[in-house]
Parts: sequence; structure tokens; C-alpha cells
Amino acid sequence: MNILHARSNIADVEATRKKQMYDHPTLQDILDARARLRPHIRHTPLLRADKIESAVGCQLYLKPETLQITGAFKIRGALNTALQLPRDQIANGIISSSSGNHAQGLSYAARMLGVKVALVLPVTTPKLKIANTRALGAEVIMFDGDNAARWKKVYEIAQEKNYAVIHGFEDPRVMAGQGTIGCEILDDLEDVNTVIVPLGGGGLISGIATAIKELKPSVRVIGAEPALTPKYFHSRINKERTSLPLLDTIADGLRLSVPGRNPYPIIEKYVDEIVLVEDTHIVAGMRALATDAKLIAEPAASIGIGALLAGSIKVRPGEKVCAVLTGGNWDLSDLAKVFIDAA
Amino acid sequence: MNILHARSNIADVEATRKKQMYDHPTLQDILDARARLRPHIRHTPLLRADKIESAVGCQLYLKPETLQITGAFKIRGALNTALQLPRDQIANGIISSSSGNHAQGLSYAARMLGVKVALVLPVTTPKLKIANTRALGAEVIMFDGDNAARWKKVYEIAQEKNYAVIHGFEDPRVMAGQGTIGCEILDDLEDVNTVIVPLGGGGLISGIATAIKELKPSVRVIGAEPALTPKYFHSRINKERTSLPLLDTIADGLRLSVPGRNPYPIIEKYVDEIVLVEDTHIVAGMRALATDAKLIAEPAASIGIGALLAGSIKVRPGEKVCAVLTGGNWDLSDLAKVFIDAA
Repeated sequence: MNILHARSNIADVEATRKKQMYDHPTLQDILDARARLRPHIRHTPLLRADKIESAVGCQLYLKPETLQITGAFKIRGALNTALQLPRDQIANGIISSSSGNHAQGLSYAARMLGVKVALVLPVTTPKLKIANTRALGAEVIMFDGDNAARWKKVYEIAQEKNYAVIHGFEDPRVMAGQGTIGCEILDDLEDVNTVIVPLGGGGLISGIATAIKELKPSVRVIGAEPALTPKYFHSRINKERTSLPLLDTIADGLRLSVPGRNPYPIIEKYVDEIVLVEDTHIVAGMRALATDAKLIAEPAASIGIGALLAGSIKVRPGEKVCAVLTGGNWDLSDLAKVFIDAA
Repeated sequence: MNILHARSNIADVEATRKKQMYDHPTLQDILDARARLRPHIRHTPLLRADKIESAVGCQLYLKPETLQITGAFKIRGALNTALQLPRDQIANGIISSSSGNHAQGLSYAARMLGVKVALVLPVTTPKLKIANTRALGAEVIMFDGDNAARWKKVYEIAQEKNYAVIHGFEDPRVMAGQGTIGCEILDDLEDVNTVIVPLGGGGLISGIATAIKELKPSVRVIGAEPALTPKYFHSRINKERTSLPLLDTIADGLRLSVPGRNPYPIIEKYVDEIVLVEDTHIVAGMRALATDAKLIAEPAASIGIGALLAGSIKVRPGEKVCAVLTGGNWDLSDLAKVFIDAA
């Protein structure tokens, strides 16, 4: 399963696109986001991971958003959106749901802007993500139920308290914020050949792929999706958004049963390949990053390295491959379990 | 014990210095090392560790040499020395002893220069450091015995095989290489107030303190030494190099019973304070770096954060403190034990 590739058919997508409107960020939106975010976020370094290279057969670079403020990339999209909303829209507060990293990004943005923030989190959220969100001053509402029910709750509270909703991957301003990562990669590694991006809700890869394909179409953009939640993979094959049963992948940050409405057509347009990665390979990626790059990456962030280690992405020797490490927010005790198995 | 400070008396040291010659690097040696090393090593990023700041009461910056080639700073000194030795001196090979990170740095340098390298390692060396050294093509000789006996073995082999010995902290060219870290810190954080450096053999802090005090004397340089091996701390109090029983600190990279002959007077001249750190605080430092900075640091590398968390270093709010993270080479299974305890 994990060596299958679902390939994009741009002609099909264009035809579909004409039939239905969807919200997407333009390259200019991403460049504007970059200028808007520059004073507030970190341009994370690009690190060469030479010690992993012999195992993966290419030149390997890491874009460690683990070192970003809040320990994940999500601050980019959250802040880019919050900064654009009229003050009276956010005056009462901001709300969203999240698997944990968007929660921290949004809470950081709200604190910066001096407004209230509430997050509805699934009960499966890692403790560290909950604690970090609370530490940023957010109201945290733990919710036991599926994604649709959780979002229903979000909109109920939003209506009741007049909070602004900032969605973690449907909002084109959020995607534009995440897309600034693509610009930074091209700045720091001009001759990059391939960029691998973890695929959860799809907001991150929508932004990055837009930036990269509009600026340098020859760069290959690959989405890495857990084999246990192959929503985008199957949607590509089926040529429509396909809902799947939600299986319990270790990559909590990528757990979702159906592709995002707005990200889906962007991904079909811009993303060259979607590869599936088994949990065992995600864990192998975490270990390799810890042992050979000295970085703590959560499972969702390690999926690209897992895909390379599993041989799921065809690479040439000398090819310059950059893997985006999305975040590092995972409980130490769970990391310990992953590291003990490696002994 | 861990809150005691041993303070330098520069007048005393100057008097002693006039009486005895010792080998030390000049600022120019360090600047030359920088130019020499530039094509070969990484200028590691300077990272703000904002999430640890409330626990330590100052602005906190990290200099993560964990992200350096070979996962530790030692490549700087090893390569700076190897590049300066005449080819015929190293033609047969290079040899040294090391607690593991100098071994990897030297092996990397030897591989670059295409010469043989042998390392005599204590039997207590972490498995990862041994494996990494072997993977770089070195001959590894495991040795069960004290430091003096191990070095006797090094010189025996060196004589027999006509190998050049490159000492890990006594050689002023090694110190000059390590000192380039001081220059990078001043480049990237011009208004730094305090730099904390792990104190083992003393080569690293000798280089860094020389660079910093010669370039910007107002910056405070602090050595952090394990409370279980307080050799420099006691030597400062006793005003002479003092040998202590070798107790078993978790910081394997800093285990040594007596100060280095050449580093000692440099440290007495340039290092403002030496603080002692208990193993429990070193472990707290490792956990904080993993949880809040997403970096894997070995115990030796975490000692500066441990000192800050323990309150052993007096800091003001707003003070800009930079901690040098020396390396990240530690077995995953041992990391797991440290992380489980944090649960």
C-alpha cells in the first residue's frame, strides 16, 4: 500500500474547477503574508541532514518548523489571518477546533492581539498540546465526538459569544500564511528538486504548493499521508472528495476522515504525488530525526522522512530533497516509548 | 553546593602567568581558524528559547552545536588542527583519546584529509558515539582504565605506528577551533550579556572565553561543571590545578578528574564564574530542551540550562543569556529513561 502513488491529472482538475468556485490563496497573498508575518515569526533555518542521506539515497534537507514559535508552523497561518480580520470582528474573541498545533498558533496570535480565544479540542489531543494552549491563556474545551460534531460545537459557541471562527485549513488566509514556508525553502535552497509536506487537513501543502509551483514549477511537491487515513490519496483516485473511516494513526496531527473542501482542488492542481506512509515508518522517521539530526519531531512531522526511509518516494542520488518538519509538540513519555523500542 | 560560585582573581592569575609559560590561542588564531573552517563546517543558528524563559528569569538563547556536523562542536577544533599539521606528520595517521565527541570530530577530519585515524575510548562511552566514530571509518580501541592509563596507551600506539596525536583540549589549535563559536555568538547576538559554556576538559571554554573577552570584555562568561566532578571549581578555590576522585556524573562528556594543563590558566584569566550543577538539574535541562526547544541535547550539553533552572546563575529580567549546547550524541534508550521520568 505504502508504495502506491496517486498522480494528479491537471486537465481533470481544471475542468472541475470551472464548475465550482473554491477559496484559494494567490501567490501575491502568500508574498503579502510573508511581509505581514516577518516581524512576528521566525524564518526557520534549513538544515542539511547528511547522516540520514545514505539511508534515503539523496541529498536531504530539513525545514524544522519544530523550531518555530509555539513549536509548529501553525502560527504562520493563524497570525496571518488574525492580523487581517477587522478589529470589531475579533473584539469578543476568536475560536476554532484543532488537533493541537493550530490551537497553540491561534492562542499565540490572540494573546498578541489582546483578545480572548477558545479552542475545542478532541479528547485524544496530546497533553503537551493542551498544556501549551492553556499556558498561552486560551479557554480549552475538551470534546468527545467526531469532527463534524466538534465543529458544530465551535459554531454554537461562536454564535453565542460572538467569536470569530478561524479555521485551521479551510481559510485561504491561513493557507497563505503556511505558504510562506515554501518561499523560505526556495530562498535558502534555490536548486531544491523535491519538497515533501505532511498531509493532514491540507492547508499547509496548499499554501506551500501554491508558492512553489507559481514561483518554480519544476520543483516536485509531494504530500505524505498516513496509510491509516488515506483521504487525499483515495480522493485523487476517485476524482472526488472521499470520506473514509477514521483509523487511529500515531500521527495525531494528521488524523482526519475527509479532505478539506478548499484545499482539495488546490492539492489536485499543484501536488505532484501523494504517498502513503505506514505508522512503523513514521516511527522510523522520528528515530532517525532524533538520532541523526538531534531534532524532536512529532509523528506528523516525521512522516516525510518515514516515506523516504520506506522507499515510497523515488529519488536520485544527488537530488536535493527537502522535508518539512511541521511540529515537535508531543508528550515526553510517548517519545520515551518510541525511543525505547529503538534500543 | 550547586549555588556556590568560584570567582576569578585576574591579578593573581597574571602573576602566576608570568612565572609559567603555557600554550594558548590568541584572538588572531581564532579569527584564522574561522576563515580556515568556513568552507567545511556549519555556522549553527542562534535560537531563542522563549518557552524556557519564564522558568529561568532572563532572555534565553541557544547555540545548538547539536546541529553541527557530527552532532557536536568538536569538529571545529579537530579540523582546525588537522588542517594545520604538515602532511608528512599526519601521513601515517592521527590518534587521540576522547569521551566520544572529539572522536567523531577527529574521524570526520581524518576522512576529509584521507588519512587513517585511531581512537582510544573509555569503556563507558555511549554506544552511539562509538558507532558514529566507527561509521566515519576510524579504528576504535576500547580501553578499560583511568584517564592517565588511556593516554599512555595513545602515546604507545602513536610511537609504534608513527601517528600524530591531536589532543582534545590541550592543543591551542583545538581551542582556537572551538573559539570560533564565540565569534559566531557575538555576530548573531551583538548585545549578548552572558554566555554559559559546559566545562569538561576546558578546551571549549578556553577558546570561547578568549574570543569573547578579547572582542567584548563586558560579556560575562560562565563555566558550568558537574557537581560530581568539580575539578575547575576546586582548582579555582585552591589556586592550583587540583585532582579529584572521578565520580560518575550523567554528563559523560564532562567526566574528568583534573583540569587541563593548558586550559587551566586561560580559564582562570578569562572565565568570570564557575558554577556547579547537580545531575538532577542536568536532567531537568535535558527535559526542558526537549519539551520547550524541541532539541535533543546530551547531558553535557544541557548543563547550562540545568544551572539556570536551578537558580545557580544570577540573572536579571531582560538579560540576554546564551547557553552553548555542545552536542546531541546520546543513546536513544538512555534518552527514553530520562523522558519517562518526566511523565
